[in-house]
Amino acid sequence: MEKLKKYVSVKDEDDFYHQGAVELLIFNFLLILTILTIWLFKNHRFRFLHETGGAMLYGLLMGLIIRYVTKSPDVESGTVYECEKLKTGPSTLLINITNQVYEYQYKREISQHNVNGHQGNAMLQKMTFDPSIFFNILLPPIIFHAGYSLKKRHFFRNLGSILTYAFLGTAISCIVIGLIMYGFVKAMVHIGQLKQWEFHFTDCLFFGSLMSATDPVTVLAIFHELNVDTDLYTLLFGESVLNDAVAIVLTHSISIYSPKENPNAFDAAAFFQSVGNFLGIFAGSFFMGSSYAVVTALISFMHLTKFTKLCEFPMLETGLFFLLSWSAFLSAEAAGLTGIVAVLFCGVTQAHYTYNNLSADSKLRTKQLFEFMNFLAENVIFCYMGLALFTFQNHIFNPLFIFGALVAVFVARASNIYPLSFLLNLGRKQRIPRNFQHMMMFSGLRGAIAFALAIRDTGSQPKQMMFSTALLMVFFTVWVLGGGTTPMLTWLQIRSVLVGVDPDEDLKAKAASQSASNLDKNTTKAESAWLFRIWYGFDHKYLKPLLTHTGPPLTSTLPEWCNPVARLLTSPSAYGDQLKDDDTVYIINNDELTENYESSAHIPVPALDSTGSIQATGKEDIQEGDLGLGGYKLQLQHTAGQPQKNSLA
Amino acid sequence: MEKLKKYVSVKDEDDFYHQGAVELLIFNFLLILTILTIWLFKNHRFRFLHETGGAMLYGLLMGLIIRYVTKSPDVESGTVYECEKLKTGPSTLLINITNQVYEYQYKREISQHNVNGHQGNAMLQKMTFDPSIFFNILLPPIIFHAGYSLKKRHFFRNLGSILTYAFLGTAISCIVIGLIMYGFVKAMVHIGQLKQWEFHFTDCLFFGSLMSATDPVTVLAIFHELNVDTDLYTLLFGESVLNDAVAIVLTHSISIYSPKENPNAFDAAAFFQSVGNFLGIFAGSFFMGSSYAVVTALISFMHLTKFTKLCEFPMLETGLFFLLSWSAFLSAEAAGLTGIVAVLFCGVTQAHYTYNNLSADSKLRTKQLFEFMNFLAENVIFCYMGLALFTFQNHIFNPLFIFGALVAVFVARASNIYPLSFLLNLGRKQRIPRNFQHMMMFSGLRGAIAFALAIRDTGSQPKQMMFSTALLMVFFTVWVLGGGTTPMLTWLQIRSVLVGVDPDEDLKAKAASQSASNLDKNTTKAESAWLFRIWYGFDHKYLKPLLTHTGPPLTSTLPEWCNPVARLLTSPSAYGDQLKDDDTVYIINNDELTENYESSAHIPVPALDSTGSIQATGKEDIQEGDLGLGGYKLQLQHTAGQPQKNSLA
Repeated sequence: MEKLKKYVSVKDEDDFYHQGAVELLIFNFLLILTILTIWLFKNHRFRFLHETGGAMLYGLLMGLIIRYVTKSPDVESGTVYECEKLKTGPSTLLINITNQVYEYQYKREISQHNVNGHQGNAMLQKMTFDPSIFFNILLPPIIFHAGYSLKKRHFFRNLGSILTYAFLGTAISCIVIGLIMYGFVKAMVHIGQLKQWEFHFTDCLFFGSLMSATDPVTVLAIFHELNVDTDLYTLLFGESVLNDAVAIVLTHSISIYSPKENPNAFDAAAFFQSVGNFLGIFAGSFFMGSSYAVVTALISFMHLTKFTKLCEFPMLETGLFFLLSWSAFLSAEAAGLTGIVAVLFCGVTQAHYTYNNLSADSKLRTKQLFEFMNFLAENVIFCYMGLALFTFQNHIFNPLFIFGALVAVFVARASNIYPLSFLLNLGRKQRIPRNFQHMMMFSGLRGAIAFALAIRDTGSQPKQMMFSTALLMVFFTVWVLGGGTTPMLTWLQIRSVLVGVDPDEDLKAKAASQSASNLDKNTTKAESAWLFRIWYGFDHKYLKPLLTHTGPPLTSTLPEWCNPVARLLTSPSAYGDQLKDDDTVYIINNDELTENYESSAHIPVPALDSTGSIQATGKEDIQEGDLGLGGYKLQLQHTAGQPQKNSLA
Repeated sequence: MEKLKKYVSVKDEDDFYHQGAVELLIFNFLLILTILTIWLFKNHRFRFLHETGGAMLYGLLMGLIIRYVTKSPDVESGTVYECEKLKTGPSTLLINITNQVYEYQYKREISQHNVNGHQGNAMLQKMTFDPSIFFNILLPPIIFHAGYSLKKRHFFRNLGSILTYAFLGTAISCIVIGLIMYGFVKAMVHIGQLKQWEFHFTDCLFFGSLMSATDPVTVLAIFHELNVDTDLYTLLFGESVLNDAVAIVLTHSISIYSPKENPNAFDAAAFFQSVGNFLGIFAGSFFMGSSYAVVTALISFMHLTKFTKLCEFPMLETGLFFLLSWSAFLSAEAAGLTGIVAVLFCGVTQAHYTYNNLSADSKLRTKQLFEFMNFLAENVIFCYMGLALFTFQNHIFNPLFIFGALVAVFVARASNIYPLSFLLNLGRKQRIPRNFQHMMMFSGLRGAIAFALAIRDTGSQPKQMMFSTALLMVFFTVWVLGGGTTPMLTWLQIRSVLVGVDPDEDLKAKAASQSASNLDKNTTKAESAWLFRIWYGFDHKYLKPLLTHTGPPLTSTLPEWCNPVARLLTSPSAYGDQLKDDDTVYIINNDELTENYESSAHIPVPALDSTGSIQATGKEDIQEGDLGLGGYKLQLQHTAGQPQKNSLA
């Protein structure tokens, strides 16, 4: 008996290890299939199903197989046991079963109505992984990569519009979806599909905020492949990246909004507390993320005489970069802030400062590493979303609610894009053309963030209904809208660069898009100019010299009495070296801006070289795409400690 | 009440997320500290504490803090609850506590004597991560990297010796440790520290097998840094890599060795079954790993007319490479074989075939990616080992057992290295010098694999004692032997290349080492020659052309009637292209071998070019270190379908 028992126990343990391997193997298998499919599609220039859509499809099929083909061997698991001695659920439970103590780990709270037969399928359970893996491991690389690969120059050029869409637009979208869903919920109560008390207005707003997180990864991938107009790309990219951050903090704020009395009544105090919360969390996360990036920049820039530079050990440098960036996320989460926001701004700041300090080797290494992690994490998430349709055990599909969500999402997107574009066009010198607006409207895909926010809490019936609906919305938008991107671009005449599928069509499209692009060519100087100029001056004069090898030496920008400190903080290579600063390129391009800027901030401006052309040194930039320079390049010339002041000849 | 409950539940959940973040943050923090320390050490050329030793030290300190500073808030967890209704422990337990159902996940079986107070410290528990993460996620990249970066040429040159040390040596080590420990166990029973029935001879052998896995990562890192003699490096590296595989399979075989009657008596049937098991598992895992690598090579080599090559999409190529290699590990585990062995040979085969098909970009990407993953995984494991000293809750430290293990490990290493070296030197033309033998004896560090094998099963008291002892042995060998590597090298006069610490000393060391190295210079032709030649001919004529772009076209090596098939399978680039094959370089270097080879296998041999020197084309190789060519390079010249036959002028 003792023997048999031991054997069984060892066998169980073996099974346990293999089980872990089997789950991982299934994901590997799905990802391999996805990669092979992408390869096939790329060969045939087939753009109607993006890799994420493919990953989701394979996940779906695998979920179907696991759900209906694998058996449910663990019969006892469906039973609920009574325990009178316990008051609450401890994190670990030790249970004595026929003289053998077993340790159980707390997993979650389950609603009574969810205790059904499927609960017992061990395979299904193991494939449903912990939401904390989702948040702590899979999301950070995606968001960081977004921040790290932000097209800085175009981003700042359109900063005003992007912020408007991201903050105001997301708030509008959240409220519109909330209101429409509240109408549908009322209707559902009316026809008896739902009890009134189950669904408050705050729940509707919660759904609105999570459904407001757009994820146009599919659309942007196609844009990138087709070289679509950079301003449109930047507007969409910037909006979606910031919008994720806003939606996450908004969801968090709404979930902790707790009016004192009637949950349906408006409570001003609680509302303002939520708004305060929102601002506090956003600012805190922003600060946390940037601080980590600044620390990374400082470490990678260390040039105390005793130390060789960190960039001489590319492996250590890459490792430190990776770990500190991830820590930005984790610290924010641990501090009760929003990790996603922290890691996003960490990525932006890393690209701005740290990237300039890296060795050429590390630049390539980090770029490829983050690209690779982004690629893997993205496909794992989309596979998992496909799987979740069949492996998640407590779906509630309500046709009316789903239809309502579909309507609400489109109406909300429309009342975000069109009115805001109209308002922005009043202020912008270069208007956002009509076809861009339509394209932005069309690109309102829902993806990983909406899913992640929905899966975080599936404890109650309303939350389960929201999760199931959000999942379906992701499927619908990724497959239908994502698949329709290429035709839509052609129809709206936005396609810009020849890609060789159909030369005639492409040429037409190119001509059309160029005319559209020309309208928007010479950047919108007025918007964001003053704020941007102040920030730029401060950044260029103090932060860049302090944190990177670029910009003028601190000794020349700080007041004279700070000279000893400045000398200590300035890199020896800053003297005599030709200082290269990418951003200056941008400033120079905007003649008007430059002139204003020069007169107010006294920073050095490039001299023409003998051939009469302005030359830039070969400082690579992370960002791809054109520099908006119209063929001009420039070279900054400095002499140590003494900023030259020249004007454009 | 309902309200309060809900609030508490949400709060718990939030805590739960933050908890996950906190654990990861602690690891990140330890790794960041480690990297900064390595940087500091590298700056001061301090080689007495390797990064792994540093990681372990920081882990130790953190474990101390977590153990004695954090409180144990979860009081109820220490209590054992009775459950009469259950027969065995199901994988999921649903428990109804005051009308709320909680879900618990099965974690492990606990011995009665382990149910102590510390069980309740949630922080301690969360820091002790699941051994399956160790096996499925952290170990594969380390082992794969070892296989991938194997110095093929030197490895094959010393193949006979390496196999002898790895198979015979590990078996000797296992038996010697087992016998010595059995003696100590008898003594412990004699003085009453242990009950006889607790510790069988098979348990001692189990301990012997897990303590036989050497991990000279520290030593090899120093060798690499100091450019120590390549043959010594290869002997140690090859031995330790294969020895891990052997030790793992051996441990598995011993753990399932179950004699029918008295567990102390020798049961021939069971013994031979174990031996059969060992061979079966080893061969199966080898086959599984190589197959995955061959599949990868085939995919990356696909050249059907419709397809662009995979190497035109470096991201997809890297992804596929990574996923298929990991799948080799997971499939082997899922099939009940040994993943470590599979992933090791997968790495070797990938380096041999797939690497040649990769684009230059992917070559660099994969190399850097695997290097980085190896670096991270290694440091996480060593951090974790440090942590485990304080966070593992069921340590049993028995001074006599620990002393016994210390003696046993050294005696076993000595009876492995010296007798086998003596035997090998009888057969080798180039003898393994005395100082190399001493260095190999000294390099018997224990590391990740021994730890991983010990932590896999800590259910019973003997197993816990073994785990605690193994952990201490790791600490001792990594810190003491690892730290003593540099002085030992100097003392044994093995140091070979000037590194600039002390020029005089280095020059002396260099001279000494060169004379030692010269003894061993012209490779050991006799050993492994015939087996190697047959394999090489087959590989060069059939496998390389089939799986890579190197070697002669299949049309010329296959019999004539196979021509249609051969034409289909041969890469178009194989015709007319200058065929480059690294391995030929090696063959050519061994004049005698080449001549034998040429007359028996009729493969093309290089022609001298006009300048009279043999030139190799610039095909990069993964491996670093000298090529053993003594300045000669060669260039193979082929014409399509017709192998040229020249002899060395």
